[in-house]
Amino acid sequence: MRKRHLVTALLTLPTLVLADEGMWLFTKPPVEKVKAAYGFEITPAWLEHLQKSAVRFGTGGSGSFVSPNGLILTNHHVGSGMIEKLSTQERDLRALGFYAATLEEELRCPDLELNVLMSIEDVTARVRAAVKDDMSADEAKLARTAVIGQIEKESLDATGFRSDVVKLYQGGAYHLYRYQRYTDVRLVFAPDEQAAAFGRDPDNFEFPRFCLDMCFFRAYEDGQPVKSEHFLKWNAQGAEEGELVFVAGHPGRTNRLATHAELEDMRDHGMSGKLEQIYRSEALLEAWASRDRENRRRATGAITGIRNGRKAVLAGLDGLLDPEFMAAKLESEQKLRDAFRAKPEWQGADEAFQEISAALKSGEPRELRARMLEGGEAFATGFFGIARTLVRAADEYPKENSRRLREFQEAGRISLELDLFSNEPIYRDMETLKLANSLMVLCAKLGANNDLVEKIMAGKAPQERAAELIAGTKLDDVSVRKSLYEGGKAAIDASSDPMILLAKLVDGPARVERDHLEEEAEILLQAHEKIATARFAIEGDSTYPDATFSLRLAYGVVKGYQESGANVPWATTLGGLFERSELQGNVEPFDLPQPWKAAQDKINRKAEFNFICTADITGGNSGSPVVNKAGELVGLIFDSNAPGLKLGYGYKEGNGRAVSVHSAGMLEALDTIYGAKRVLEELEK
Amino acid sequence: MRKRHLVTALLTLPTLVLADEGMWLFTKPPVEKVKAAYGFEITPAWLEHLQKSAVRFGTGGSGSFVSPNGLILTNHHVGSGMIEKLSTQERDLRALGFYAATLEEELRCPDLELNVLMSIEDVTARVRAAVKDDMSADEAKLARTAVIGQIEKESLDATGFRSDVVKLYQGGAYHLYRYQRYTDVRLVFAPDEQAAAFGRDPDNFEFPRFCLDMCFFRAYEDGQPVKSEHFLKWNAQGAEEGELVFVAGHPGRTNRLATHAELEDMRDHGMSGKLEQIYRSEALLEAWASRDRENRRRATGAITGIRNGRKAVLAGLDGLLDPEFMAAKLESEQKLRDAFRAKPEWQGADEAFQEISAALKSGEPRELRARMLEGGEAFATGFFGIARTLVRAADEYPKENSRRLREFQEAGRISLELDLFSNEPIYRDMETLKLANSLMVLCAKLGANNDLVEKIMAGKAPQERAAELIAGTKLDDVSVRKSLYEGGKAAIDASSDPMILLAKLVDGPARVERDHLEEEAEILLQAHEKIATARFAIEGDSTYPDATFSLRLAYGVVKGYQESGANVPWATTLGGLFERSELQGNVEPFDLPQPWKAAQDKINRKAEFNFICTADITGGNSGSPVVNKAGELVGLIFDSNAPGLKLGYGYKEGNGRAVSVHSAGMLEALDTIYGAKRVLEELEK
Repeated sequence: MRKRHLVTALLTLPTLVLADEGMWLFTKPPVEKVKAAYGFEITPAWLEHLQKSAVRFGTGGSGSFVSPNGLILTNHHVGSGMIEKLSTQERDLRALGFYAATLEEELRCPDLELNVLMSIEDVTARVRAAVKDDMSADEAKLARTAVIGQIEKESLDATGFRSDVVKLYQGGAYHLYRYQRYTDVRLVFAPDEQAAAFGRDPDNFEFPRFCLDMCFFRAYEDGQPVKSEHFLKWNAQGAEEGELVFVAGHPGRTNRLATHAELEDMRDHGMSGKLEQIYRSEALLEAWASRDRENRRRATGAITGIRNGRKAVLAGLDGLLDPEFMAAKLESEQKLRDAFRAKPEWQGADEAFQEISAALKSGEPRELRARMLEGGEAFATGFFGIARTLVRAADEYPKENSRRLREFQEAGRISLELDLFSNEPIYRDMETLKLANSLMVLCAKLGANNDLVEKIMAGKAPQERAAELIAGTKLDDVSVRKSLYEGGKAAIDASSDPMILLAKLVDGPARVERDHLEEEAEILLQAHEKIATARFAIEGDSTYPDATFSLRLAYGVVKGYQESGANVPWATTLGGLFERSELQGNVEPFDLPQPWKAAQDKINRKAEFNFICTADITGGNSGSPVVNKAGELVGLIFDSNAPGLKLGYGYKEGNGRAVSVHSAGMLEALDTIYGAKRVLEELEK
Repeated sequence: MRKRHLVTALLTLPTLVLADEGMWLFTKPPVEKVKAAYGFEITPAWLEHLQKSAVRFGTGGSGSFVSPNGLILTNHHVGSGMIEKLSTQERDLRALGFYAATLEEELRCPDLELNVLMSIEDVTARVRAAVKDDMSADEAKLARTAVIGQIEKESLDATGFRSDVVKLYQGGAYHLYRYQRYTDVRLVFAPDEQAAAFGRDPDNFEFPRFCLDMCFFRAYEDGQPVKSEHFLKWNAQGAEEGELVFVAGHPGRTNRLATHAELEDMRDHGMSGKLEQIYRSEALLEAWASRDRENRRRATGAITGIRNGRKAVLAGLDGLLDPEFMAAKLESEQKLRDAFRAKPEWQGADEAFQEISAALKSGEPRELRARMLEGGEAFATGFFGIARTLVRAADEYPKENSRRLREFQEAGRISLELDLFSNEPIYRDMETLKLANSLMVLCAKLGANNDLVEKIMAGKAPQERAAELIAGTKLDDVSVRKSLYEGGKAAIDASSDPMILLAKLVDGPARVERDHLEEEAEILLQAHEKIATARFAIEGDSTYPDATFSLRLAYGVVKGYQESGANVPWATTLGGLFERSELQGNVEPFDLPQPWKAAQDKINRKAEFNFICTADITGGNSGSPVVNKAGELVGLIFDSNAPGLKLGYGYKEGNGRAVSVHSAGMLEALDTIYGAKRVLEELEK
């Protein structure tokens, strides 16, 4: 009886990954699956070449080397934050585009960090060994944090590589990822944003699409272009319909192994709060942008990001509000638990589901306070983030490394300092607007009569309080930040900067929330570890873990789909952009990009422009190279379609597609429209 | 002891109005205050002249006579509804502007009523006498309505004037206002809307401004221009910095006499919920509008309305979140209650504050459910409104008139049918978007597992459920609505229209909320009457009552202010419009108005254009004349700045300013840009 139970369970477990499903580890690539389905064999050399050609953008995206001289291809929307930072009021590079006709003209980014994954080491055993069975949750966490910090530090010291321990399979495994780090990164080429983001928000997450969402950076070391041993050869023909393709990139986060209770919690709490915040920011920033052209330039990136986020959250929430999906999740979970109950040593794994439910339930009442104070939703200004980092740095750095908050451990120090001392411009008027609004939210959520809220508001209304905080702070001056950072606790205590004072005021209560959050996270972690261990005993690592912004391999086929009875074709052409623009009366955001207008008689309108494939991707994959069986670049991921957006909580075969820029279309545009000869020569085209 | 108490109370009651505060009755002008502060004496003749020069627009604005021949000045945005009605498909007067070069060319408005206040009579005693102490609340209401109707009818019969009894001081006094009524009103001049509303929503409620927000009408009687004995002489120099000015107009509504508990309730509940809803609609509609031109055309009106509302709510909320303001409110309320407690007959008034608090408190737990179900926030589509009206009409009309829900009583039937059978187009795609989103909110707010929510969702995710409801309903067909309306209960019961089924499903639970809401409203009303009566016994009419869209006098000084350390100057110039347009790249809504472009070389760019003053105004004051000590027209109110928007709940001296068009700028524009020679001659300029 028990045995039959188990067999049934196995048949319906998530183990059975579907066609083209998966964001696979490079240490555990889907060799058998791909071979069975497509007759292609992934070899270690093929894989290593792809791995070392792939680039991770610290700002949250992906890219790849495409020349032996450190030339990197990514999306315009991955680079746009940098492109904005490199702009001035006189020279808006987002609007105008940029092309460095010579090496000397390449523009150095103020604070961009790129990572290339050099090696992976399984450190699960060492992490596990540090955590003893008889430890309390707190002790366990400390012990784990300590050993992870130690592993990372040892690795950094030994190799000089950025070293991150990545938790995989919800704690089923821990891997040490070592990255070559590049911090001298320069902008080489970017099209005008109108071409890069043609159709903008209205077309976002849709297909057909017509976006030249690409740009080039170059990595430097010691002032010289990096010699990139591994780079992807550019395939001039590009992806073809029906072709098998691979995607190497850094999917940020999926929740496919979340329990039913966790999905309910996200549905009923996390996401609606997030949506509320998104709507607020979106409406405010859009209104602020419409007041002034300069505002528009400053806010466009943020607005695009927010709208992106809104669509993703809306799609995800709609998925979680699908009673059928939730019922299926619950059913497969019940079967897994039945399987666990079949073996005495897996009882704990079964009980872990209850522990997760209970922890979420008990965390609920604090959720709002945690979001406001520790999540910083109440203080929506970059100044507060800076102030908090300074205040906490003074408290944390004197502590022993492993006892520090995670973001202050030594392994992260370089990135933290890069961020903290960034020259990124901060606009006081926009910051005042955002802060005033978030203070209003604080009052609404925690209550204007709340003791802490009263202290924060200091007897003022939100607008007045925000205005005095932003007007009074000197933290836009990097040298002020440096001296507070270097001066440590004494400097912080002596500071009368109002933003520092605010961060100090909030820090105690925020840390209380942080402690609770970490405690809850620890309970969830331990419960998931129990589930993961039992699941591993059934599945092994035959499947892939949830996304963790670490390098993954996805694969799929270039193909269209049917929607509401209509065919959605596999690709668009350059000419399609002209047609869509004309159909929309050539008005924003469908107005013809200026360089395209100028070149319209010369362009090969039949060249493929954007295309779709079934590879399983998510946010963070933006800028990922799409390669063919020969490992050559045939496309550049830049989006999902709307059905693809729902897959974060569970893969479902259907109309979900990854959307890419086609390598042939990019070449044609670089040549005919942008005349980027030097880049083309470097790509040997 | 008691006496001392009372004296103290009197000294610190809201009686003590602040500098430049107040929307004063013409029967009780702030003579002493103005004299003390500015050394100017308001005389009865001066006042009568101003009163009889002031004009009330039935559509909700103000204006004034500016010539002896019935020429009336008001805002373009006050007249724009009429200007639109006078337009034809071939001749869009809002876009093009209008100028009647001869008297004969003046265009008669189809349905505009103007009122000029001729006399005021205190009828408090007569109203009070009709309401006996031993009457029940219901009887008292009926008796009061009856006596007011009688007073108005007698006055109309005797004088021929429009006669309105106005409830002042929340029921502390009743005054009979007699108006000369003009219904033959003709359009004389209006600039193009681009000049009138330059900067549109982005600039709304801001300063500096550059709006020629003016137009002229003329009142006729028996086909001839009215001989207006009282009119304001146009001062060609216009307002000067530092000058004392007066505003005569019709402020619509303020809540300065709301209790502290009511303000807290608005702050903590009403307004933040409202804001959340506004942000959501604003973000969604703006994103939808950006998809294509036709969407933009359809959504523009709604978006402008929402943004206007957001600015007002944000400003109001910021005001309520000012701890200083709230503390002062509480203190003055405590003193008032101390005074009440000093007299046995005022005990009830003191207790009334508690009754208000208790009623609000007891309503809190139901608030969300009431908003969702009875407020309809969960079903944000016009289709649901139609369905609910049909479902309720079938239930309500068979009842005796006085027992029906208010909106189904006979007095409102014509308006209800006008609305229900309107041919106004409904766009299914926009409705689906709105409904899907609001269903998502319903799930978030009441919980996806809530029984009623599950029934509403019918096993579907929000997008799918919204799509099927909107695709399935036939309620866009007016004949379908008519047959359901005329068919009554039987037709509704037989209908399988999904929107009717939804409205039926929701109606029971929604009516439960409605009952609770009405009960709460009645308690508040009665409590306020008790407070008002006692308050009036102490203060009499030494202070001004909340705004009631009746004629009021405000005063103040022409002056700029400081904001975030920067000077906001007292005035702008005509040249400023050109500069702002250029700085904004001459793109909408900052594109140069065509007539301005044509005249740009001739215009005196130094002429003052818009200016600000400290007079205490609110919505309804639009179009009010600004006069100097000589009673001459020096400006035309058209807006408040953002800090001015906060003052609806309580005046506070600060950066609040009324924004006006300057009389010199208007002259220069009429002359150089619009060549309105005939009007200028009539103004003797």
